Amino acid sequence: MIGIIRVFTTDDQEILEQHGNVITKTYEVPTVTKCIPDQPLGIFNDETEEVAIPKIVKLGKELEQQGCHVIVISCAADPAVAEIRKEVSIPVIGAGSSAALAALAIGEPVGVIGITNEPPAVIESLLGPLYTGYKRPEGVRNTTDLLSPDGRKKGLEAAKTLINQGAKVILFACTGFSTIGLANVLREELGVPIIDAVEAEGMFAAALDKQLTASNGK
Amino acid sequence: MIGIIRVFTTDDQEILEQHGNVITKTYEVPTVTKCIPDQPLGIFNDETEEVAIPKIVKLGKELEQQGCHVIVISCAADPAVAEIRKEVSIPVIGAGSSAALAALAIGEPVGVIGITNEPPAVIESLLGPLYTGYKRPEGVRNTTDLLSPDGRKKGLEAAKTLINQGAKVILFACTGFSTIGLANVLREELGVPIIDAVEAEGMFAAALDKQLTASNGK
Repeated sequence: MIGIIRVFTTDDQEILEQHGNVITKTYEVPTVTKCIPDQPLGIFNDETEEVAIPKIVKLGKELEQQGCHVIVISCAADPAVAEIRKEVSIPVIGAGSSAALAALAIGEPVGVIGITNEPPAVIESLLGPLYTGYKRPEGVRNTTDLLSPDGRKKGLEAAKTLINQGAKVILFACTGFSTIGLANVLREELGVPIIDAVEAEGMFAAALDKQLTASNGK
Repeated sequence: MIGIIRVFTTDDQEILEQHGNVITKTYEVPTVTKCIPDQPLGIFNDETEEVAIPKIVKLGKELEQQGCHVIVISCAADPAVAEIRKEVSIPVIGAGSSAALAALAIGEPVGVIGITNEPPAVIESLLGPLYTGYKRPEGVRNTTDLLSPDGRKKGLEAAKTLINQGAKVILFACTGFSTIGLANVLREELGVPIIDAVEAEGMFAAALDKQLTASNGK
């Protein structure tokens, strides 16, 4: 079983389990999801990241105790990934690093789209010379903006701009793009590989979960 | 469909398709495999790599023309990966880079085992500071040596040595380890993540094949 940590607060079970449902559907592995307390707006600056880190580490320990074989921090900034790795003995996967590593396997120039002003540092730094540029879809500042048909249209326009600038791969530096299904829209329209951060974290986590479940289950 | 290139010469269909069969079984994607001509001993030094490169590029172009959506060079040294990428318009995945990137997603120290004197440069360089060491199983110099029960035992011993030296993940820097099923032996015995190069290349290639097949098939 994969333990998934969402870095905002919700008591809406459907919203909570959105990423887990994508991973279970795509890779046929069971997941369990927890979210951090008292941060309904999630992480949106250094201060909110700092207060979130000990909460994320605590959830990681709980998920390990519950028998998870892998933990996923389902946020493109990889918050607390380094800190949790020191505290648990199972693999810890971050959404941002997963997306960047999946793009590196293709070895072609990568254009990044997200909802913040700058791409997450972990993504830009891992991509290195393959990083070609970053776009925030026009007018989109949070995941709610993405939910409108106009939000999707602006997402498509941002990806097209990056491709015109030389990108051969588009990477989603925000897990919110997954929940609106933007990857499939872009795949149909653009014909280039689209790296969706939730699919990427699920790809690595599912491979590990399958092998560690098999070896622990003997 | 994934096009797989084996970098040695064989007319034994079963041996030819070993890697494709692992990938189809693990990820439920169709594969087609070709091997390079006139190199029954494959690539084993700079000279044999140099003569193989144009042959690999030629096969890559043929696989693209046959309708493959992704090409895999199924060798841990990533031979001709950079050269093929210049000649085809579909993603090209190498076994060595795939294995290293899958290990990087875990973010823990990696011990590498292989059959050459040194690890492939692409693997050591991608792992960077997470590379902890390399072992060639005692007495194992080619994939045939691996086929004996003693070969597997020496493989297990090499992995144990690397774990004692601090490795938390074991990476196979030779696709020959896949065909003898060493990964499952080690998973049962050791309880740490084992990165098998054929499984890793298949993981990236299958994810790309699924999305590119879906978008081209509309």
